[in-house]
Amino acid sequence: MTMLPDLTKTTLALLDATDPLASKRDAFFLPDNTLYLDGNSLGAMPRVAALRAHQVLNEQWSRDLIKSWNSHQWIDLPHKVGEKIAPLLGAAPGQVICCDSTSVNLFKILSCAMLMQPGRTKILSQAGNFPTDLYMVQGLASLLGEQYCQLVLVDDSPDNHALEQAITTEIAVLLLTQVDFRSGRLLDIQRLTQRAHEQGVLVIWDLAHSAGALPIELDACHVDFAVGCGYKYLNGGPGAPAFLYAATRHHDRLTQPLTGWMGHNAPFSFATDYQKAPGIAQFLTGTPAIIAMSVLDAALTVFDNIDMQQVRYKSLALSHCFHHLVTMQPCLADLQLITPLQPSARGSQLAYQHPHAYALCQALIQRGVIADFRAPNILRLGFTPLYLRYVDIGTAVTILANIVSSQEYLKPEYAVQQKVT
Amino acid sequence: MTMLPDLTKTTLALLDATDPLASKRDAFFLPDNTLYLDGNSLGAMPRVAALRAHQVLNEQWSRDLIKSWNSHQWIDLPHKVGEKIAPLLGAAPGQVICCDSTSVNLFKILSCAMLMQPGRTKILSQAGNFPTDLYMVQGLASLLGEQYCQLVLVDDSPDNHALEQAITTEIAVLLLTQVDFRSGRLLDIQRLTQRAHEQGVLVIWDLAHSAGALPIELDACHVDFAVGCGYKYLNGGPGAPAFLYAATRHHDRLTQPLTGWMGHNAPFSFATDYQKAPGIAQFLTGTPAIIAMSVLDAALTVFDNIDMQQVRYKSLALSHCFHHLVTMQPCLADLQLITPLQPSARGSQLAYQHPHAYALCQALIQRGVIADFRAPNILRLGFTPLYLRYVDIGTAVTILANIVSSQEYLKPEYAVQQKVT
Repeated sequence: MTMLPDLTKTTLALLDATDPLASKRDAFFLPDNTLYLDGNSLGAMPRVAALRAHQVLNEQWSRDLIKSWNSHQWIDLPHKVGEKIAPLLGAAPGQVICCDSTSVNLFKILSCAMLMQPGRTKILSQAGNFPTDLYMVQGLASLLGEQYCQLVLVDDSPDNHALEQAITTEIAVLLLTQVDFRSGRLLDIQRLTQRAHEQGVLVIWDLAHSAGALPIELDACHVDFAVGCGYKYLNGGPGAPAFLYAATRHHDRLTQPLTGWMGHNAPFSFATDYQKAPGIAQFLTGTPAIIAMSVLDAALTVFDNIDMQQVRYKSLALSHCFHHLVTMQPCLADLQLITPLQPSARGSQLAYQHPHAYALCQALIQRGVIADFRAPNILRLGFTPLYLRYVDIGTAVTILANIVSSQEYLKPEYAVQQKVT
Repeated sequence: MTMLPDLTKTTLALLDATDPLASKRDAFFLPDNTLYLDGNSLGAMPRVAALRAHQVLNEQWSRDLIKSWNSHQWIDLPHKVGEKIAPLLGAAPGQVICCDSTSVNLFKILSCAMLMQPGRTKILSQAGNFPTDLYMVQGLASLLGEQYCQLVLVDDSPDNHALEQAITTEIAVLLLTQVDFRSGRLLDIQRLTQRAHEQGVLVIWDLAHSAGALPIELDACHVDFAVGCGYKYLNGGPGAPAFLYAATRHHDRLTQPLTGWMGHNAPFSFATDYQKAPGIAQFLTGTPAIIAMSVLDAALTVFDNIDMQQVRYKSLALSHCFHHLVTMQPCLADLQLITPLQPSARGSQLAYQHPHAYALCQALIQRGVIADFRAPNILRLGFTPLYLRYVDIGTAVTILANIVSSQEYLKPEYAVQQKVT
């Protein structure tokens, strides 16, 4: 990416004027006087999502009641939503389904993968991986016993190649998150998957912080399994259902343990014995969350006719502008970027360490710039190309610089950590 | 219950006029020209549910975005909804939480219970239990291995006491559904739990077909664990989040395997090691489904100031009237009731076997009487005291008699089984 010579307001406005994604902003409801840099935590609301919720309650559930399972195709939603997400993941049809939470889906996949690797007991991940991923491994290990399942963690960094060295024939499963939730570092799916396969290791990618933010090529990279989140860059609403990817080549030999009735080959035969459904449907468990899944289904239409390369370009450009403007402000010298700067190594967020990161974040929020704090000292800023403008970036950095230079963030009300998410 | 001497329209209207729950009907949206006898499958929509969905999308998510986790107490919803459900189950505070699906919650509880019973490997249930319950046991067994976990099924009936005889010291866990989804038979929680405890067996009750339909006394019956559904008699909407009950006395020694970040003692410390939250919060897994859970939260307000004994009385009276009217119609003699008639042995539904049950159900639906078919030959009718009137019962039976006497149900369009739920 070329360094922009002069990021004046005029330049930023010009970037907006030539932005091929600019019109997508209208698809979202965005509150007044708010610059939202936290779409990596909870995506903003597509207007169509509210319309769809209204329909599902006031036209479907209320009027057509139980008949809606057929007449409004509720029963098809897990597949329909899965197939809408699939192109964002580089997945051919029949491999993605929408259901449950990321954590629950990860448990299904982890269990499957371990059963496919008799004689291997180790699940390898990064020490800094999102905790729920590590906790789900620990939960599986508590159930199976440590002799059958152990979590192995490495402190990987862009410099030490610790991860690659740890991928050996001793490992059963490699569980990684493509974009690190703290640092925003982006891992190379293609390279790490290939390395894993060379050692007979199955891979599970958590795409929570990347799906909808950048192009992903699961099929082309021969990924085995993936999970991800519906409420971040996919804008499906708070606690939206999650998704799960399993490569077709594995479908016939999978045994996932959360064998609820919706994953049965013939759920409405009410047979006593479980017989798994063919294909990706085997990953369904309980009755699908229709209201929530409908909202996600509608939200995904904002990705219609979108080129993910354009999304990626704008994401990198927005964050590049942000950091460039930060470096131009002497008062922001204490903000230490922990996100790798090169485009191939970062996702769609920037993370800065600062001794007063919590207070800074609170002061920003008070001024309408919604950023995020991650313990112990990280100010996290997410860049969502579908609804952020270049001029917003300029305004956000100006406000940040103002808060720092005025020492506004030292106000006592910003000192206590009360934020829970 | 006294047999009503003469169930004329006038008598039924009089019963409505003196019904203490009559005013609750206004709390629901009910479509015109529809008699809804399927609230045991999907509850009707409380009007307040639609209002709440509108609020959560158009005032909370859209406007306050990520801040809503605190400002709208999203983070408290699993507990708040759990505590609203608790009184309907006879559960003191701190023992019920709302999360995930019934199936997923059952897996958590089954795993916990098995770990509490070293040396015992058998999970006892009824052959006719709702399939997802049996499938989840089979899923756990597939993961643990048959030597550690086996499902044992008995063909219990009100006459043979097979269940009680099968509860021995060989059994680890007794898994039963209080009201049978097909027959509507009601099991005696108190007696079976006591019998189980005498043999050192832990009990799990599935309350899917009873919670919100009849008074339940989990604490008084010393039940160990329970799960249940949010979208039947609790009217939480299609695929609403489910609930889970765990008696306080067990909390400290439980290890449930779906250890997601929300069940961590300090989720926002983002620690590498899982440390379970105290109390019922240890059963949380992923990020709560806020939109769906908010709808359920609102729907539960229809139970405010309701006496569950009155609900039970009306439920029995509605079904009693229905069956009495059926027996008065000679043309309905082929409908064979498989639900026990005595009040202590039935829930809030009636089930009739009929060789043309599917066609009858379709013809009823065509005429606006929404009933339910369960393979192979069961016509199922649910009685929801909060929004059904006595006069509705009269109308429904009249329509049913008309369909049978006219042989309308033999029309070709009712012959093919297309209904999926």
